Amino acid sequence: MKIGIAQINSVIGDFPGNAKRILAAYRECLEGGAELVVTPELSLVGYPPRDLVFKSQFVPKCLQALDYLAGEIREVPLLVGYVDHHHPAHPGKPFRNAAAWLENGKVQHRIWKTLLPTYDVFDERRYFEPGDSSEPISWRGKRIGVTICEDIWTEDYLQRPLYDRDPVEELSAKGIDLLLNLSASPFHLGKPLLRRAMIGGIARKAKVPVVYCNAVGANDQLVFDGHSLVTDGNGRIAEQLAGFADECEVIDPFLAVERDVPLDSCDAEDLYKALVLGVRDYVTKCGFSSVCLGLSGGIDSALTAVIAADALGPENVRGLTMPSPYSSRGSVDDSFALAKNLGIRCDEVPIRHAFEAVKATMEPIFEGKPEDVTEENMQARLRAILLMALSNKENHLLLTTGNKSELAVGYCTIYGDMCGGLAVISDLPKTRVYEVSRWINREREIIPWNTVEKPPSAELRPDQKDQDTLPPYEILDGILELYVEHQLSADEIVSRGFDETTVRWVQRRVDLNEWKRHQAAPGLRVTSKAFGIGRRMPIVQRFVG
Amino acid sequence: MKIGIAQINSVIGDFPGNAKRILAAYRECLEGGAELVVTPELSLVGYPPRDLVFKSQFVPKCLQALDYLAGEIREVPLLVGYVDHHHPAHPGKPFRNAAAWLENGKVQHRIWKTLLPTYDVFDERRYFEPGDSSEPISWRGKRIGVTICEDIWTEDYLQRPLYDRDPVEELSAKGIDLLLNLSASPFHLGKPLLRRAMIGGIARKAKVPVVYCNAVGANDQLVFDGHSLVTDGNGRIAEQLAGFADECEVIDPFLAVERDVPLDSCDAEDLYKALVLGVRDYVTKCGFSSVCLGLSGGIDSALTAVIAADALGPENVRGLTMPSPYSSRGSVDDSFALAKNLGIRCDEVPIRHAFEAVKATMEPIFEGKPEDVTEENMQARLRAILLMALSNKENHLLLTTGNKSELAVGYCTIYGDMCGGLAVISDLPKTRVYEVSRWINREREIIPWNTVEKPPSAELRPDQKDQDTLPPYEILDGILELYVEHQLSADEIVSRGFDETTVRWVQRRVDLNEWKRHQAAPGLRVTSKAFGIGRRMPIVQRFVG
Repeated sequence: MKIGIAQINSVIGDFPGNAKRILAAYRECLEGGAELVVTPELSLVGYPPRDLVFKSQFVPKCLQALDYLAGEIREVPLLVGYVDHHHPAHPGKPFRNAAAWLENGKVQHRIWKTLLPTYDVFDERRYFEPGDSSEPISWRGKRIGVTICEDIWTEDYLQRPLYDRDPVEELSAKGIDLLLNLSASPFHLGKPLLRRAMIGGIARKAKVPVVYCNAVGANDQLVFDGHSLVTDGNGRIAEQLAGFADECEVIDPFLAVERDVPLDSCDAEDLYKALVLGVRDYVTKCGFSSVCLGLSGGIDSALTAVIAADALGPENVRGLTMPSPYSSRGSVDDSFALAKNLGIRCDEVPIRHAFEAVKATMEPIFEGKPEDVTEENMQARLRAILLMALSNKENHLLLTTGNKSELAVGYCTIYGDMCGGLAVISDLPKTRVYEVSRWINREREIIPWNTVEKPPSAELRPDQKDQDTLPPYEILDGILELYVEHQLSADEIVSRGFDETTVRWVQRRVDLNEWKRHQAAPGLRVTSKAFGIGRRMPIVQRFVG
Repeated sequence: MKIGIAQINSVIGDFPGNAKRILAAYRECLEGGAELVVTPELSLVGYPPRDLVFKSQFVPKCLQALDYLAGEIREVPLLVGYVDHHHPAHPGKPFRNAAAWLENGKVQHRIWKTLLPTYDVFDERRYFEPGDSSEPISWRGKRIGVTICEDIWTEDYLQRPLYDRDPVEELSAKGIDLLLNLSASPFHLGKPLLRRAMIGGIARKAKVPVVYCNAVGANDQLVFDGHSLVTDGNGRIAEQLAGFADECEVIDPFLAVERDVPLDSCDAEDLYKALVLGVRDYVTKCGFSSVCLGLSGGIDSALTAVIAADALGPENVRGLTMPSPYSSRGSVDDSFALAKNLGIRCDEVPIRHAFEAVKATMEPIFEGKPEDVTEENMQARLRAILLMALSNKENHLLLTTGNKSELAVGYCTIYGDMCGGLAVISDLPKTRVYEVSRWINREREIIPWNTVEKPPSAELRPDQKDQDTLPPYEILDGILELYVEHQLSADEIVSRGFDETTVRWVQRRVDLNEWKRHQAAPGLRVTSKAFGIGRRMPIVQRFVG
């Protein structure tokens, strides 16, 4: 039984486009001899559609597109993910996260997702009613269990046992020969490896081969990494599709034999590929073809520029270097060196004159009060005006370049360097920014080594260094991982060996800067807990712990 | 049985402060002769705590505070809302939305919320596991049913039947003499009236008096309006507590007789009171004591200033009027007239010089391209720099003044007039802005009549008027209500008599500007569907319908 795995990149709400993508992949699989083709979760819709499903014509148009797709399918069945109505007379949520088995011009079977993740970045109980039974589908003498994403995530891989049902066990009890799974499982660091272990375990437990088809591509803050899998009935990996790229593959899971399909990329490479895919999809799915960004001579903007140039082509990346009276000449030189290495255009626009004009404007109001952080922010905000002017005049999407460590403690200027349509590396802690940058330079200098090696500085006052204000980044990132990702208390973090004053300072800064992050550009999630849709903190609150 | 209703204003995560507020209200009720005291949903925690509950020490500290409270209670029981752990060995969410019956130094009973709203602004299935039985509490010869908020919202008042359980029916079947409800039910226009009808219906159906204790105060984007209620066993209103203010009241529901407790405030008054409370709580709970804002001479900034002066006192509101080369002298005069009427300080800071400096800075890049929206945005962003400078230098929270209509269609400048910590009237459609402003002026001119009556203009180019770009506000707001609040398709809106070209223009503008709203300041929700936490649209999407 040759199964085609269509690891496709859907666009949210683009029913005609997604139907075309699905059909193209289906036909590619047919050419490869497929006897059954499987696509990712909500492949016809794009994941996650969020509140679009509440629009009065969203699900009706989805069902129209499904009918159209069904009409294109003959004897080789296609499994496609879509959103269905829940029965209007039954209590519960109005919709189903569904899969349709299309065959001979019709929807032959409908499958409802049973386990609905409602944690972290997922909100499925907001929209969907769970399925209440899982029936194997008999086809060509085999009994096939069809599941959707979370349905196969056993509690060993969840933060706590969440569900009182186990769809794989239910299917196994009814007797299956093969388990299929349609997924839209977003990337974070370590997730591809975790999935392999989880899926292998499922196959061993159910004693059947597993075909796992994952989405690829980025939608808003989520990057889907593909890495679709096939295991034999002993949980051994027989096939793995590409990471971070569209791919179709045809394989017979019953004839599959273990192959050495290593996941040998390092963290830096995975992070880099996820961010390149994230930028490409965000920019192009939004209808832009080019971006602009500020180049400071520092490592954050350099890394962002490298990612953008890879994602969109260097001709579609435009840099501005905007020295203030406190910028070093070296920073401007480093920016031009980077631009030259990448082949992107960079212009120099000094802000001194505009900065003086703004200061003079406020002079009568400030009545001789000394300069302070106000004037530092003015510089960052003037740069934002210039970048947004370039974005407006030439129709570039502005990328913002801040990293996760500074966003965490608010070492960034709202309406200044935080401005932009996409915060490319906002989920990369500063230590990871260095790690990825060194990986980029592994063969030759792309990011000027001077940028990588000099002490980081915002250059908003004379001789300023990040470490005048912040703890060393190794320590800061260590504390942030425990506080933000693991949600430990200050006491618990101190007990792991960190200095108490530093821990409490970091904690207070993270809490106080929630309001800035509320207005931050969307970022691309690459760790297990990003700032963004998966972390929903109140701004007005007084908890300390 | 005299019951004390403690309609209090909790601060999220402020366990010591909330415990004090609860005890103060409890003692006030004791002095009024209360034999049992009830507080709102999650009164010890503040609603909604959101992801704070995942912090490792949040629930433990909540339980400590509950123990402390219990220790302060003698023979008069106190019902308090808190977050409990779910049983660690049982599958499901880690927490419970709970109420504790404190009596004689101990927690005598624990009640779990059964129906967990997971729609609109609510995310309870993200955190909480529902209760699986509701047992009446026997006390002083009466059987009391204790419920939490959604538990009494019957399906007639929901968008569709959501739940397969009915806690009130379950309690009724077991026999009750009285129904108590602890609520944190946020305000939107019409909600107080809706609640009265719903609670009256519940009392009639269960044939028992109902005591409904609602929270008051604002937390982030939600304003809780209080309006706690007591009905007799025929559903007739016997008592209603204040709207938009703390209050304690003691009443015997078994001796209650129908009273004429009218809800006679008009929409404008409710909206105004909700926003005043919202601003006061947002600013003071964040630890600020003063605000600043830009005064344009237009009606949006004028209304925002009136609300702020009422919320915080005129001495705590600081205005800047920042004329550009395109501003009329009348706008500056109107701003000063408003400031005089309110008793707030206002300074004039012309932006011409800084505007020229910024334009000159970009001249070499723009190479003689004609002026366009770029230069309009520059002015708005320069004003933001000046306002943020004032905010930084003098520690005011900056209020942003945009209304819902312009936020919907993106007729506003991101990083410009959208800057601020709180978007005070961002859920007021422009037609409502006029309605509330006229209500404010009902007895004497507070907002200069010239501001109310002149055609609205952004004054970013010569002789600009809003209606050069936008449909008349009556039409725009009509379309927006159908498109944003009711989520109808363009076809459906056209079928209600609106011009098709206009409808499709509005639809496209709303969809295209999702990215701006993603970075908008939090607003105060006063309609049934605000931009903000209750509306979660993807940015990257292509659905048109």
